[in-house]
Amino acid sequence: MTTKVFLNEDEIPRQWYNLAADLPTPLQPPLGPDGNPITPDMLAPVFPMNLIEQEVSTERWIDIPEEILGILYRWRPSPLHRAIHLEKALDTPAKIYYKNEGVSPPGSHKPNTAVAQAWYNKQFGIEKLTTETGAGQWGSALAFACSILGLECKVFMVRISFDQKPFRKIMMQTWGADCIASPSEETNAGREILKKMPDTPGSLGIAISEAVEAAVTDKSGKTRYSLGSVLNHVMLHQTIIGLEAKKQLDKLGVKKVDVVIGCAGGGSNFAGLAFPFVNDKINGAEIEIIPVEPTSCPTMTRAPFAYDHGDIAKMTPLLPMYSLGHDFVPPPIHAGGLRYHGMSPLVSQAIVEGLLKPRAIHQMECYDAAVLFARTEGIIAAPETSHALAATIQEAKKAKEEGKEKTILFNMSGHGLMDLGGYERFFQGALEDYPLPEEEIKKSLEPLKDLPKPSTAKTGKW
Amino acid sequence: MTTKVFLNEDEIPRQWYNLAADLPTPLQPPLGPDGNPITPDMLAPVFPMNLIEQEVSTERWIDIPEEILGILYRWRPSPLHRAIHLEKALDTPAKIYYKNEGVSPPGSHKPNTAVAQAWYNKQFGIEKLTTETGAGQWGSALAFACSILGLECKVFMVRISFDQKPFRKIMMQTWGADCIASPSEETNAGREILKKMPDTPGSLGIAISEAVEAAVTDKSGKTRYSLGSVLNHVMLHQTIIGLEAKKQLDKLGVKKVDVVIGCAGGGSNFAGLAFPFVNDKINGAEIEIIPVEPTSCPTMTRAPFAYDHGDIAKMTPLLPMYSLGHDFVPPPIHAGGLRYHGMSPLVSQAIVEGLLKPRAIHQMECYDAAVLFARTEGIIAAPETSHALAATIQEAKKAKEEGKEKTILFNMSGHGLMDLGGYERFFQGALEDYPLPEEEIKKSLEPLKDLPKPSTAKTGKW
Repeated sequence: MTTKVFLNEDEIPRQWYNLAADLPTPLQPPLGPDGNPITPDMLAPVFPMNLIEQEVSTERWIDIPEEILGILYRWRPSPLHRAIHLEKALDTPAKIYYKNEGVSPPGSHKPNTAVAQAWYNKQFGIEKLTTETGAGQWGSALAFACSILGLECKVFMVRISFDQKPFRKIMMQTWGADCIASPSEETNAGREILKKMPDTPGSLGIAISEAVEAAVTDKSGKTRYSLGSVLNHVMLHQTIIGLEAKKQLDKLGVKKVDVVIGCAGGGSNFAGLAFPFVNDKINGAEIEIIPVEPTSCPTMTRAPFAYDHGDIAKMTPLLPMYSLGHDFVPPPIHAGGLRYHGMSPLVSQAIVEGLLKPRAIHQMECYDAAVLFARTEGIIAAPETSHALAATIQEAKKAKEEGKEKTILFNMSGHGLMDLGGYERFFQGALEDYPLPEEEIKKSLEPLKDLPKPSTAKTGKW
Repeated sequence: MTTKVFLNEDEIPRQWYNLAADLPTPLQPPLGPDGNPITPDMLAPVFPMNLIEQEVSTERWIDIPEEILGILYRWRPSPLHRAIHLEKALDTPAKIYYKNEGVSPPGSHKPNTAVAQAWYNKQFGIEKLTTETGAGQWGSALAFACSILGLECKVFMVRISFDQKPFRKIMMQTWGADCIASPSEETNAGREILKKMPDTPGSLGIAISEAVEAAVTDKSGKTRYSLGSVLNHVMLHQTIIGLEAKKQLDKLGVKKVDVVIGCAGGGSNFAGLAFPFVNDKINGAEIEIIPVEPTSCPTMTRAPFAYDHGDIAKMTPLLPMYSLGHDFVPPPIHAGGLRYHGMSPLVSQAIVEGLLKPRAIHQMECYDAAVLFARTEGIIAAPETSHALAATIQEAKKAKEEGKEKTILFNMSGHGLMDLGGYERFFQGALEDYPLPEEEIKKSLEPLKDLPKPSTAKTGKW
């Protein structure tokens, strides 16, 4: 039995799929500080115009430039596997398939958009990119992309991760990026924080402020900022995952997928796999599409659809999204990439439309799933990815209970070889779940009260 | 231009290539303590008889069992890449290709033989394997294989690595293996050492003694020992690398390879890529085949072809091989997998026959090569692999000087994501070369004097 499908380079998808073209209700615009919609020009100091055009595009298919394909070929098309060993261990009638995005040099799906963003910036004459990173998966992907394309790269890494995860920092340095701890002495934002709190461990909010400031204050005009998730153009670049998966399932003779699963922090790996299937669902296919989040950071399952800032410092525009409030600080779970208060506007809108069925799962169940996956399929998954694994196992067990031969597809978004510390603490019994009391969520939602409200368009069609 | 070639599962090689069938002079046998050849029966407490049969086989082609192929399919066939970006950076007329063995779940070529060995042991009724590991690449590969095949796995890990590289240990635990620091209280060998030297950092020699003792003293008779390099059957299992590479080069229309390169510690990744090309050379092809070792552990370039023990404790039979003497303790270079005093008898015999041109390179040049590779091709290589990279760059520069459009093929034997500490020290300027004075080598060769001598058969045919 064939358990793994490659595609040749000439079979790679040559266009990205843009869900914005097919959403029953048009995406609501980002708003500026005055409550009025942001215009593309207002974003120009932060992003290059060619990416801003993609951000607001409602074209269904967008050509992938040949040169970007040329770089993606280094590891793409990524393999599609059938998880027969996991199926056997679960004694399930379900058929489980997964895309393995862990085969990229930085080890995750992140370079799919890092390469595209670096390329468009270079086309626009940009010579340097700045970004922030938490645990380091995004920072290392952008360092990799900039290295290939000959751009400078500056990464502001949250201090506590910078100190605790030195290997991610070394990866970035190996690819030639300048990675420094945030808060730093290099920006006003950093200096102000350090004056007040010299011993702060830093936060993603602070690091975003520093990275944006470093981009917009660079007098050469040749520096821009790059974001690894949330935004529309990031979701767009990731759809190559789902488009490849469709071709591969086709090669295997799989006619229909019943359940599609991905973990979701900002939403990009989930969207990458799922959006081409959301398109099928809009066109009438019966399919359940599940973004999975940590119970301790329940953006999609317990927060409202609202206008909110993307960062704590309120430097970003207001985005229409599910949000726990920009002040929300998630508990210290190991899945650092899922510790985000908001959610991609495109994913959020798809939830509002009833196209997705979000699910929250606790940390311990996710590690149990990851260990079972490692001992059956042989791959050690990233802590983020373990949330997709846990939901997949839930669905496979449900299929057994119902006696249904369902086909499940999930995204193995990255390997966990840089995150083995979490596995160690799991084996030591030192990990825990973090159930979130209602009062805590209520409190974190307070700042949303004074912000504009999006119209929640529920068409009820699906 | 196509820069990466996959093979489909149905194109995978279905037989291993056994160089022992084609060596102009037959391989000389291992000798026992009395100086007489070891018989297969004498190895039976250590290895299962089906692997002993492979160890002594002179059949040219050996069928790969379907079930082993079924497991190898999880990551094989591994991709073959053309390193066009490295070529460009070197401005060389040479065409450079490489096999990427880093895509396996444990991240190196090691599972090619780990899976085969675990499978043959299971077929023979064995329920548990013991092994030793230094830096952890082999131990994690065997843990992975045993996890898939449902065997118990016990890894004796050199204490200093156990303490300094906790992530490798966690990998093994994630795959369900029992990994303990060596010397341990669990074996006579371990206890004796601990009595004398309670604070010893341990050594590969001690760990081998413990692993072999744990296997042969297990009263159930269901435990055997497993070795990750040096032996003939290990070289055999790795030849799938070179056999795949040939099919992939064929698909690319590459008619002739001029230079084949691999790093060599015990010899297995080098042999895996090179032996099918050694066969071509025996049959008259003009091709230069280069095993690369560290200048600080110059087994092939400065040691004699001799009979020597594989371990410091002299528990193993005498093997005919290039050896620096079983007491030799290599300097603390980061390429832990290349810190071995001996060399595979098959590789050694091929050197004696003049089929290979060994080369030694210093640590600093290797790290320079690895950083260039990371910043052009995008892949962070293991410190061992960096030796193959450095030789490849030397050959590419030579091709430029000579104005020749040579085709170079090397083995990217593993990624370096678990070994970033070496890169960090390199960037900090904390690494050094370790030139080896002649007196030191002379001294380490002393113990060889009293051992039997192999006949050095130089046919001079090539």
